[in-house]
Amino acid sequence: DLPFTLIAGPCAMEGREHALEMAAALKEITGRLGIGLIYKSSFDKANRTSVKSNRGIGLDTALSIFAEVKESFGLPVITDVHLPDQCAPVAEVVDVLQIPAFLCRQTDLLIAAGETGKAVNVKKGQFLAPWDMKNVAAKIESTGNPNTMLCERGASFGYNTLVSDMRSLPIMAETGHPVIFDATHSVQQPGGQGTTSGGDRRFVPTLARAAIAVGVAGVFMETHENPDSAPSDGPNMVPLDKIEGILAGLVDLDRLTKAYNAKQQA
Amino acid sequence: DLPFTLIAGPCAMEGREHALEMAAALKEITGRLGIGLIYKSSFDKANRTSVKSNRGIGLDTALSIFAEVKESFGLPVITDVHLPDQCAPVAEVVDVLQIPAFLCRQTDLLIAAGETGKAVNVKKGQFLAPWDMKNVAAKIESTGNPNTMLCERGASFGYNTLVSDMRSLPIMAETGHPVIFDATHSVQQPGGQGTTSGGDRRFVPTLARAAIAVGVAGVFMETHENPDSAPSDGPNMVPLDKIEGILAGLVDLDRLTKAYNAKQQA
Amino acid sequence: DLPFTLIAGPCAMEGREHALEMAAALKEITGRLGIGLIYKSSFDKANRTSVKSNRGIGLDTALSIFAEVKESFGLPVITDVHLPDQCAPVAEVVDVLQIPAFLCRQTDLLIAAGETGKAVNVKKGQFLAPWDMKNVAAKIESTGNPNTMLCERGASFGYNTLVSDMRSLPIMAETGHPVIFDATHSVQQPGGQGTTSGGDRRFVPTLARAAIAVGVAGVFMETHENPDSAPSDGPNMVPLDKIEGILAGLVDLDRLTKAYNAKQQA
Amino acid sequence: DLPFTLIAGPCAMEGREHALEMAAALKEITGRLGIGLIYKSSFDKANRTSVKSNRGIGLDTALSIFAEVKESFGLPVITDVHLPDQCAPVAEVVDVLQIPAFLCRQTDLLIAAGETGKAVNVKKGQFLAPWDMKNVAAKIESTGNPNTMLCERGASFGYNTLVSDMRSLPIMAETGHPVIFDATHSVQQPGGQGTTSGGDRRFVPTLARAAIAVGVAGVFMETHENPDSAPSDGPNMVPLDKIEGILAGLVDLDRLTKAYNAKQQA
Repeated sequence: DLPFTLIAGPCAMEGREHALEMAAALKEITGRLGIGLIYKSSFDKANRTSVKSNRGIGLDTALSIFAEVKESFGLPVITDVHLPDQCAPVAEVVDVLQIPAFLCRQTDLLIAAGETGKAVNVKKGQFLAPWDMKNVAAKIESTGNPNTMLCERGASFGYNTLVSDMRSLPIMAETGHPVIFDATHSVQQPGGQGTTSGGDRRFVPTLARAAIAVGVAGVFMETHENPDSAPSDGPNMVPLDKIEGILAGLVDLDRLTKAYNAKQQA
Repeated sequence: DLPFTLIAGPCAMEGREHALEMAAALKEITGRLGIGLIYKSSFDKANRTSVKSNRGIGLDTALSIFAEVKESFGLPVITDVHLPDQCAPVAEVVDVLQIPAFLCRQTDLLIAAGETGKAVNVKKGQFLAPWDMKNVAAKIESTGNPNTMLCERGASFGYNTLVSDMRSLPIMAETGHPVIFDATHSVQQPGGQGTTSGGDRRFVPTLARAAIAVGVAGVFMETHENPDSAPSDGPNMVPLDKIEGILAGLVDLDRLTKAYNAKQQA
Repeated sequence: DLPFTLIAGPCAMEGREHALEMAAALKEITGRLGIGLIYKSSFDKANRTSVKSNRGIGLDTALSIFAEVKESFGLPVITDVHLPDQCAPVAEVVDVLQIPAFLCRQTDLLIAAGETGKAVNVKKGQFLAPWDMKNVAAKIESTGNPNTMLCERGASFGYNTLVSDMRSLPIMAETGHPVIFDATHSVQQPGGQGTTSGGDRRFVPTLARAAIAVGVAGVFMETHENPDSAPSDGPNMVPLDKIEGILAGLVDLDRLTKAYNAKQQA
Repeated sequence: DLPFTLIAGPCAMEGREHALEMAAALKEITGRLGIGLIYKSSFDKANRTSVKSNRGIGLDTALSIFAEVKESFGLPVITDVHLPDQCAPVAEVVDVLQIPAFLCRQTDLLIAAGETGKAVNVKKGQFLAPWDMKNVAAKIESTGNPNTMLCERGASFGYNTLVSDMRSLPIMAETGHPVIFDATHSVQQPGGQGTTSGGDRRFVPTLARAAIAVGVAGVFMETHENPDSAPSDGPNMVPLDKIEGILAGLVDLDRLTKAYNAKQQA
């Protein structure tokens, strides 16, 4: 089994310079650690808690910046799509299309994403059982596109709280698709601050370590040089200067886990 | 306080003749009971559990049938929209646009619906706390459209199960918007039958009575002359020949409740 | 079907004089409303959040006060037991033994309570599905005592929160035992204030009305002339001077519901 | 930080010979792996789903067998207590008293256990938030006994289902007490088989690995040479011939995690 891939970047794309700096920093870190990197940012925060919250940089600007990130650093990039019509233009630049959790059962969006032929990372809905993700994957498979990734990001647990069920990782892996653990949104407290979502970044390494020790193909971890001033998901993002230490721990765990899992299956 | 309004019809629009028959039957029943009726059907089941499930009759056919229902029976009609672009054409015929629960935080959809000037019924997401619906309502209010209804349809409770928290009704009413209780989808067992959602229609009157006794502006109750052969939500729909008995009980409860609530607030 | 019975009193027994005053006031109110009353208080709060919280008046003192309440007012009384050994002495005075929710699966306690021959009111555990209460009832039935009541008081819903599933009422009624709705503890926020449990008494009538409209044999509603200074469960108790208005509304609802349910079953 | 300790044995004590065989086998395995062992069995299953289920071998027989296990193998032993009166006699033989999850807020039981001076392992209630375990620990601390262990065994998640929140491990560790992860009962499906509890032992290693990678002082893992014929918790127990492979994987993970956590805190 291969080492885990990191999906990382700032939650929202803030601008060209910031994106290039973050991509450069993350490339350096993952290079030192010997793990793959897919650079992530959102061009539109389409389901913010409040209508007054910042929406994002927009599709066109984002695509040109993603193109520059790819060219400058040779990195694959991932971003989320919200409407079927966005899939084709986004797929011209972006390597992995991400389906947001709330939209994981929107058949037209899944099919439009699948039809691009690009890889598709589907976040499991907070309202969905892990065994139901096989039906989600089947929607994408129906387009003939085999490259789906399934991503755990927490399940609804009472109000304004999520819980990460580590059993979901092997259950989703039974589909044969790579499973990603989103350590950032799993610590979110949806709507937990009145007009914005809260979170507790202290538990990002906790949950990422748990997931890696179970066995995943990738970890999703948003980061920012100054999370508390970030335009979205600040409470959940790991400060950039802490991420290498966390990842180094995960690399060691991952090696051990992949060896263990290989032996168990032998 | 006015008597509750019924939002009812078969879950999916099946065809012109079926729609006219159902509308006629429901108009007769609600006429006898002295309550309002908004005729409901979906033209597209956009988030079915499985890609192999039937999607629906399509927007254009549905709109012409809705127009005929309106003209023939003088009934207002409601249907759900899934994409911002659908709002304007749907609003040319339909009186109330309904936002599906999974999509209740999609800002563009809420705003497009609000901008039509038609009433908007937003289903509360299974992942959302009732106090967070004020932020959802504010997105529609930001368009200058004051006609929002907020609808309880169950909250995620473990896997494949929903629970209806009756406290959500007064909490959502604090926004000043009419609150609807969806007794059909509240008894849904999402994904509970492997490739379709299950449900237990036995509890439709249970939950509807509970909601009416707390106080709501309307009840949503899908019905079908033969639910077990219906194309969607069959396990949750009330047989047409049982609905009048249930509604008659609700009318009595509602009268008592509205009088009680008026006295409490006096 | 008979009108609902009220189980009411202050959560903790505070003293002889207070008990007699509360019993007198509640007897007057229920007399005016034409409903039955079982006087409730606890002699020991055996599972307080914090070890520093007040425990209670003790078994012996409580029993003599209960005896006086019975004699002075002709009222049946109910109190909770925590250990098998308490059942026999409590049953010498008390008419209904109550099993606390956390203890609803403790076989020895259920059997000791059953063996007294007195009625037993079992609170459903916050961790228990309603269909599992048939196994709880069967433990008491195994003693030959047929007088069990099953009581809904909320199910765990994330952390520090309970939710009341109104479907549990007809599900528990399938056992053939009377079903009680505890409107006081259903609005509890367990442990929600750090070292004490919180709650929101504003929703006591909300949930009581919902339960009555579904159909129950009794309602449990703790009350106090000054809840905010009560030794326990203050946030959930209804002020004594508000209870008659709430109950009057419930009496009307109950009459309607019992008539409706009778007609449905006919 | 020290390597994790294993708490293991068959769920219910079945007899002298079986206990000695299991203890011998587990001592050999943990000796080879270099980890500590506390031998666990229950003398009474006091809260079985059904009154018809087997209760257990009884206190006196169990204590003499525990004494023989201790003498023959030099192993510390742990068993659960259900009533305050059991604590003192059990503590004459047993090294660690365990408080069942349903009973984790019963003040008298916690205090009686604490007053024995023996170590106390408290299972976190399925209905309790992890931050509320500090109040539970304080009840034992109030006796002057500092040796409390806090044990995660799953939180209620809808009906008949538990979920393990790995964040609870560091949250409970903030009390300063050792934290144990019970991998056996965390995969339980309470009441999930009608008159017995179900479970899925397939996820025992999944959750144990997750917990170890976060960092715990001990793992609780029931085992049996033939779980499907065991008198209780069969669906959750790991077959004896599989446990060494699982534990070996945990030992490696634990070493890595303890080193990582030490570095993070440095």
